Amino acid sequence: MAVKVYGLPISTCTSTVIICLNEKQLDFQLLHVDLFNGEHKQPPFLAINPFGQIPALEDGDLTLFESRAITSYIANKHKETGPDLLLHHQSPKEGAIVKQWIEVESHHYNPSITPIIHEFFTARLRGHEPNQRLIDQNLERLRAVLDVYEQRLGSTKYLGGPWYTLADLHHLPCTFYFMKTPWASMVNDRPNVKAWWDDISSHPAFLKVIEGMSTFDFGGDDKK
Amino acid sequence: MAVKVYGLPISTCTSTVIICLNEKQLDFQLLHVDLFNGEHKQPPFLAINPFGQIPALEDGDLTLFESRAITSYIANKHKETGPDLLLHHQSPKEGAIVKQWIEVESHHYNPSITPIIHEFFTARLRGHEPNQRLIDQNLERLRAVLDVYEQRLGSTKYLGGPWYTLADLHHLPCTFYFMKTPWASMVNDRPNVKAWWDDISSHPAFLKVIEGMSTFDFGGDDKK
Repeated sequence: MAVKVYGLPISTCTSTVIICLNEKQLDFQLLHVDLFNGEHKQPPFLAINPFGQIPALEDGDLTLFESRAITSYIANKHKETGPDLLLHHQSPKEGAIVKQWIEVESHHYNPSITPIIHEFFTARLRGHEPNQRLIDQNLERLRAVLDVYEQRLGSTKYLGGPWYTLADLHHLPCTFYFMKTPWASMVNDRPNVKAWWDDISSHPAFLKVIEGMSTFDFGGDDKK
Repeated sequence: MAVKVYGLPISTCTSTVIICLNEKQLDFQLLHVDLFNGEHKQPPFLAINPFGQIPALEDGDLTLFESRAITSYIANKHKETGPDLLLHHQSPKEGAIVKQWIEVESHHYNPSITPIIHEFFTARLRGHEPNQRLIDQNLERLRAVLDVYEQRLGSTKYLGGPWYTLADLHHLPCTFYFMKTPWASMVNDRPNVKAWWDDISSHPAFLKVIEGMSTFDFGGDDKK
């Protein structure tokens, strides 16, 4: 039975989970959650994720939320299929270094790139002009993170080492949106980061989600 | 050879790593990093962690930073010693649920409790009065997280299920400081959260770090 993913294709965290399922060539059913009408804050969805956020995964009798916990579960369960996204087949030390860079994405990259994307693309949807001061503050933080990445990617092909892992995959959706902002040069001007981005963003597992990420889908009657 | 921990006892993330080492009854050497004189931003420490943050771990030829990656490494390497902090001996589903709650601490609990602690205890050290508006905003966020915990801990003894794991352990240092603020009632007034806190905060592995967490140690000549 195919797993169920609750979410929206334009959501970065939903896309992260779908890219991971695609890397493992797994079938899944995407169940749209109507954020625009607050479905994620209603009791049926809160029974799936009490924090009222997408995505969530259902696999038989297991329900999981938090995208990085979901990708870790998929990578563990299907470690023999497709790329070894948590390096089960390498040494524990190599696995530990992958987890370190997963934490870096989670605590350094994501908190700086997300406010930039939110302000740039969705401030007007939320009824105000983008807050340029907030964008500038986070561009500064992101620049410092990318400087570390530039150095790291000068010595290893991927963040976690010689192999493509979740430490890279988790960067895809946010960076995809960021590359559509006026600040894409922050990636393009760093040769090692640029080569890494060109590599990871050319994976078929990622190319398959781009169409969904590029279309704002508000659900409801406009689809008739 | 004992592992080396770079950090400071008053640092919540350093303490998290030490509690984990204590749970596994492992010897370690704590190497103080002099944050107050900017040692963490100098080349020798940046070679250990390019983000210039404590803690970091050295175990033979492996150097790791990011506290949650470090605890995960310790829990994996020493899975046969002490409590099974990532549920290696349970089913993959049970392990996945632990990882979900580790992500909850990381993305819900920690981002709301940390600014409260920082403002309340260290604003004056940084030369300004605590920002009460920032504290209030984060108390509101923390209250919502604790409501979810209260519900969760009504059905399982620990966040990840019937067993004490990293999903609980990671909460200890921040909650210890929070319980010394005027808002400790947010924990004490929720019976399930209170019972959980009383349980996890009575572990000998945690009791051993309390003295170090309770003493501001600025290093340098005042210790002569």
